[in-house]
Amino acid sequence: MAGGGGGGGGCRRVRGPELRELLDSKRDVLFDCDGVIWNGEAAVAGAPEAVRLLKQRGKRVFFVTNNCTRPRGNYAHKFSRLGFSDVSEEDIFSSAYCSAAYLRDVARLSGKVFAIGCQGVLQELRDAGVDVVAEDSAEGPDTSIYDCPLDPDVRAVLVGYDEKFNFMKLAKACCYLRDSECLFLATDPDPWHPLRGGRVTPGSGSLTAALETASSRKATVIGKPSRFMFECIASQFDLDPAQSLMVGDRLETDILFGANCGLCTVLTLTGVSTMEQAQEYKDSEAPEKKDFVPDYVVESIADFSEALEDE
Amino acid sequence: MAGGGGGGGGCRRVRGPELRELLDSKRDVLFDCDGVIWNGEAAVAGAPEAVRLLKQRGKRVFFVTNNCTRPRGNYAHKFSRLGFSDVSEEDIFSSAYCSAAYLRDVARLSGKVFAIGCQGVLQELRDAGVDVVAEDSAEGPDTSIYDCPLDPDVRAVLVGYDEKFNFMKLAKACCYLRDSECLFLATDPDPWHPLRGGRVTPGSGSLTAALETASSRKATVIGKPSRFMFECIASQFDLDPAQSLMVGDRLETDILFGANCGLCTVLTLTGVSTMEQAQEYKDSEAPEKKDFVPDYVVESIADFSEALEDE
Repeated sequence: MAGGGGGGGGCRRVRGPELRELLDSKRDVLFDCDGVIWNGEAAVAGAPEAVRLLKQRGKRVFFVTNNCTRPRGNYAHKFSRLGFSDVSEEDIFSSAYCSAAYLRDVARLSGKVFAIGCQGVLQELRDAGVDVVAEDSAEGPDTSIYDCPLDPDVRAVLVGYDEKFNFMKLAKACCYLRDSECLFLATDPDPWHPLRGGRVTPGSGSLTAALETASSRKATVIGKPSRFMFECIASQFDLDPAQSLMVGDRLETDILFGANCGLCTVLTLTGVSTMEQAQEYKDSEAPEKKDFVPDYVVESIADFSEALEDE
Repeated sequence: MAGGGGGGGGCRRVRGPELRELLDSKRDVLFDCDGVIWNGEAAVAGAPEAVRLLKQRGKRVFFVTNNCTRPRGNYAHKFSRLGFSDVSEEDIFSSAYCSAAYLRDVARLSGKVFAIGCQGVLQELRDAGVDVVAEDSAEGPDTSIYDCPLDPDVRAVLVGYDEKFNFMKLAKACCYLRDSECLFLATDPDPWHPLRGGRVTPGSGSLTAALETASSRKATVIGKPSRFMFECIASQFDLDPAQSLMVGDRLETDILFGANCGLCTVLTLTGVSTMEQAQEYKDSEAPEKKDFVPDYVVESIADFSEALEDE
């Protein structure tokens, strides 16, 4: 068995007693949220029950999301609202929370961060005690990139999903990054997100690509598939990769994250990626594609309940 | 001699009689503008005289700029204002003009274009008779990407430099590009531009990178180093690559453009690239770097006047 005690990237459909055996063999379960636990404002059918049963059997359950739009407390409310009765703020690791933790604990930032991001990013930075450059309320629509004020104390630029992203923010970030000692972080690499009605919305990765091109630099990415979010959880809860299961819906993000961290991986088909895509990666000759292949595949995490209730 | 009758990518400093001989051997001279003809609102010293002397000796002179911020007429005024007495609108090929020409003459667009760009882009599209999606004046600051109106007649997205770039424009463009038959064009690939005071501003290439990431598509780039701008001039003025000289200040844009089109190339040191960078490319073992090496190098295009007046 490879992949941290997984199924060797076998892309194996699993349910019933075999799935129960797999779950019994692990201590900790990490779930992605969007497309796994919920889709928009609706819980995936059976998800609250699955989480409850895992906890009942003594598993520790964590939520690892690249979605940086909400602060942790807000996520805890959403879990509660959607019928998850036993998820607390401390179990939730968003890319916004982990970015703030990185700046505080790893980079030990002294100075300010210039943040491109929405409420989730700004709130987590403040909660972590990281000094954030305030929006300049003196800037009107005619403020120009030629004479906009720059804060001399900025030592890091952080890019996340931001529906108020604009040229001025991009230009300012670009100026800060001219100083090679200014850190360049991105919450997550997600290129886009599906919206209802077939629409899509650009993701943090899209905004980061603009700044990487304009600054001729590469961002340090905090979110999946980078290892940092696992290290962040592990440092607080003493996780062992060989004892942990990663469950996600995106092969290039969640499953690769699991592979990068040495975790056994489970693809669930309630989100973005399909069984056909997983099979294509499995059949591919390219060695770098192997890390996109999940060890196991379930239809939905409702299969977990079924497996655990079967006893 | 390679490179369309050039100096074989020799990176050779040239002036005086040798430069006169080179100029005499060509019929047409193509100049980049920013960093070659002018810097900001100041002509490069001696540039108006150089252009005048070239024309006096029967050369045809064209201006090929990736800068898409102004319509052609506006450029003609700038030439006149900076002391160039004999440059007309028809000699100026900007990436905005060429993008409009591409949509009209090559793509033969039937339908509308959704344009991200400033006045130069919008005006050139209108002048070419290309139908542009109007800015929706009904959109307030609270219009959301979930319900913003999309125009069903859009058949192309064009991205250029746009100081009013924002998340909503990016999200809309992303939605249009979900239709694989919708064309995706970029005026130019320039990642950033220098501003006075050591500042930089993100270029079209930066905005294009955001949309390429969000849409999982690659843009067709009209500006240098792509061949299209040369083809655009050639189709109107019957240019012969072997008889043409390309003069520019950016190795990765102007000099590569010359190499891609089979032109003899001259680097001038009044702009972005340096002699050291040219030499580094020349000394590099990587074959793909060879196209960044100019055939010749001059200090400034004032050297042209000196060479031509020497007689």
